[in-house]
Amino acid sequence: MPATPPTPYLLVDLARLRRNVRAAAERCAATRVALRPHVKTHKSVEIARLQLATGAVGITVATVGEAEVFARHGFDDIFIGYPVWVDERSAARLLDLADRAQVTIAVDSAAAAANAGRHLGHTSIRGLVEVDSGQRRTGVTPAEAGRVAATGVRAGLDIRGIFTFPGHAYDPERVATAADDESTALRAARDAVEAAGVEVHVVSGGSTPTFAHSDTEVLTELRPGVYVFGDAQQWELGAMRPQDVALVCRSTVVSHAGGRLVLDTGSKVLGADRAGFASGFGRLPDYPDARIVLLAENRAVVDLPDTPLPPLGSKVDVVPNHVCSAVNLVDQLWVEEAGTMRAWSVVSRGLNS
Amino acid sequence: MPATPPTPYLLVDLARLRRNVRAAAERCAATRVALRPHVKTHKSVEIARLQLATGAVGITVATVGEAEVFARHGFDDIFIGYPVWVDERSAARLLDLADRAQVTIAVDSAAAAANAGRHLGHTSIRGLVEVDSGQRRTGVTPAEAGRVAATGVRAGLDIRGIFTFPGHAYDPERVATAADDESTALRAARDAVEAAGVEVHVVSGGSTPTFAHSDTEVLTELRPGVYVFGDAQQWELGAMRPQDVALVCRSTVVSHAGGRLVLDTGSKVLGADRAGFASGFGRLPDYPDARIVLLAENRAVVDLPDTPLPPLGSKVDVVPNHVCSAVNLVDQLWVEEAGTMRAWSVVSRGLNS
Repeated sequence: MPATPPTPYLLVDLARLRRNVRAAAERCAATRVALRPHVKTHKSVEIARLQLATGAVGITVATVGEAEVFARHGFDDIFIGYPVWVDERSAARLLDLADRAQVTIAVDSAAAAANAGRHLGHTSIRGLVEVDSGQRRTGVTPAEAGRVAATGVRAGLDIRGIFTFPGHAYDPERVATAADDESTALRAARDAVEAAGVEVHVVSGGSTPTFAHSDTEVLTELRPGVYVFGDAQQWELGAMRPQDVALVCRSTVVSHAGGRLVLDTGSKVLGADRAGFASGFGRLPDYPDARIVLLAENRAVVDLPDTPLPPLGSKVDVVPNHVCSAVNLVDQLWVEEAGTMRAWSVVSRGLNS
Repeated sequence: MPATPPTPYLLVDLARLRRNVRAAAERCAATRVALRPHVKTHKSVEIARLQLATGAVGITVATVGEAEVFARHGFDDIFIGYPVWVDERSAARLLDLADRAQVTIAVDSAAAAANAGRHLGHTSIRGLVEVDSGQRRTGVTPAEAGRVAATGVRAGLDIRGIFTFPGHAYDPERVATAADDESTALRAARDAVEAAGVEVHVVSGGSTPTFAHSDTEVLTELRPGVYVFGDAQQWELGAMRPQDVALVCRSTVVSHAGGRLVLDTGSKVLGADRAGFASGFGRLPDYPDARIVLLAENRAVVDLPDTPLPPLGSKVDVVPNHVCSAVNLVDQLWVEEAGTMRAWSVVSRGLNS
C-alpha cells in the first residue's frame, strides 16, 4: 500500500480529532452528564474506542446493522437511537445482540411501544421514548410521552426514560434557541412520563450545534456525533471553528476550464448534502472565499475570486458539508499524525438496516 | 441469505431494465450511432453485459478505478470520460489497463494534452478532447478544441476526436434546447479540430434527457447512463415516464409522527441529491402526490395529503432523485424478475480514483 492513496481520499488530522474528543468528554465530566456519542458519524472502531477511553459511557447508533458490527468489536452498551420497527426478523437480530450488549431501542408511538413489548418484553432490552423537540422528524409531543411510556411498560418493555434530537439546530435562525427547545420539551416529557407512573432514569439529548448550550440540569446524557470531525455545516453555523475541523477530502486539480478550479472530488465522496444555509457544496480551508458552485459525481467546480488558480495536478483540501455522509461513502479513513499515515476501516459503512 | 433483505434496499425491476436497455440500443442502431453507455450509473457487470449483448460498442466510466474493475471482468473497450490528471502513478495504472483493453481518456486543455502525451504518448491509449456544450463544468470551448487536439498529437497522443456531456439538460428550462447546444458545439469543435489538421473519427455526446433528441448527423457515439433505471430527476424533467423507472428503494414505515409518513430510507441509501427543480428528495410511485419534505440519514419524512397513512411496518417504495448516487451507496442491487430475486454486486462502488 502506498504512503498515500490516490486522490480523492478522506484525510483525518488525528491531533485535532483527539482534541475534539477530549474537549467534549471534559465538558460532560464537568457537568456530570453522561456522554454517549453517535458513532454513525465515523463508523470507526478506533474512534469509538478513543471516545470510550476518555469517558464515554457507551455508544449511540442509527441501525441494528451498525449495532451488530460494534457489538462484534466488543462494545457492550449500545443505544439504537431510532424507532426501529420490530418484526420477527428484527426481533431475532435484537435478541442476538442482547446476548452480547446492553441494548436500548427507541419508540415513538403507543403502537410501536406495544409492538416492541410484544416481541422484546421481559428481556434485557430497554426502551426510551423519543420526544420531538422541534425538528418535526420523529418523536412524540412531550404530552404524549406519558401514554407511550406506560403502554410500553404494560407490554413488558423496560422503558428507562426519554430522548430527543434537536436537529432543528441545523438552521442559522434556530441554532441559538434549539437547546432551549430541547430543555423545554424534555422537562415537559419527563413530567408527563413520571405522571404516568413510569420512573425516568435517562433524559438524553444533544447534537453538535447545541452541545455547548445543553441544559445539564435536566439532561442525564448527551449524544453528539459530528463533533469528532466537524464539517462545513458546523463551520457555517458557527458551531465549530474551521481550525478545529479534523477531516478533509484531499483532492487534485484536474481542470481550469472556464477559468475556474475543477477538483477530482464530487458527490460520490463528499456527499450531495446541501442545507438551505450552506454557501456551496463544501468549503476549502486554504481558500476561505472559494465557493463550490457545481458538484458532480466526480468533479467539484470552484469559484475562486481574486486568487491565482492552484496549478493542474496540485492538491487542494475540501471540507464536506456533512461529514457523516462523506464517511459513509468510503471504506477507509486515512489518518495522519506526526507525519505518519495509517488507514482506519469504516466498519459499518452502508449498514442501513 | 433470506429471500429478501431487510429494508431499506435497492430493488431492480429486471423486465423494465431490459426494456430500457433494448429501447436505447434499438434507437442507436436505427440511427447508426454507436452506443457506449456510462456504467457509473449501475456499476454492475451483469447490466454492462446486457448492454453489450444488445449492441453497445464498449463502455464509459468516470475513473481509472472503475476502468480497472471492468477490465478485470473482461471489458476491453473503455472510455474514461474524465480529464484524468496524468502523473507517474496514474500513468502506470493506465498503461497496465492498456494491456487488457482499448483505453481512451479525456483532455480538456493544451497543458493536460501535453502532459498526457508526455506520459502516455506513442502507446495504444487514445484521447478525446472534451468540449463544453453549455454545462460549464469541464471541457474547452469549441474554438479551443483545435489547439488542444494539435497539442496532444504533437506530444504523441493518439487524439481520435471530441466529446461533450450536455449536463445542462438537467434543468426544466434547458432540457428542450440542450441537444441543440450539444449539436452546435460539437459541429464547431469538429471543424476546429479538422482545421488544426487532426482527423476526427469520434464525435461523442449524449445524456439520458437529451438522448432522444440527439443530432445523429454529427454524433458518431452516445453515452447515456441513467436510462437503464431512470430516477425521480428523469421523471420530473419529463425525460422518462414513471412506469419505465426500473429501480426503487424498498422501505418500511417506521413512524407516523406528526401525522406524516416516516420511512426507514434516507440520504445514506437514496443519496442527498436535490436539484433546484426537484419537488422533494425522491418520489413515491404508489403515491404520486406525496412529497419527501425532510431527508435525514436514515429517515424520510413524507407529506401525504388526503390519503390514509400506510400502516406502521408496511412497505413503501421510493424512487431516488439521482440513481447513480443511490447505487453508489450499496454493495448489492436486488433484482426481481418473474417472482425470483437475486443479488447483483455493485462492483465499482466507491472507486473514485
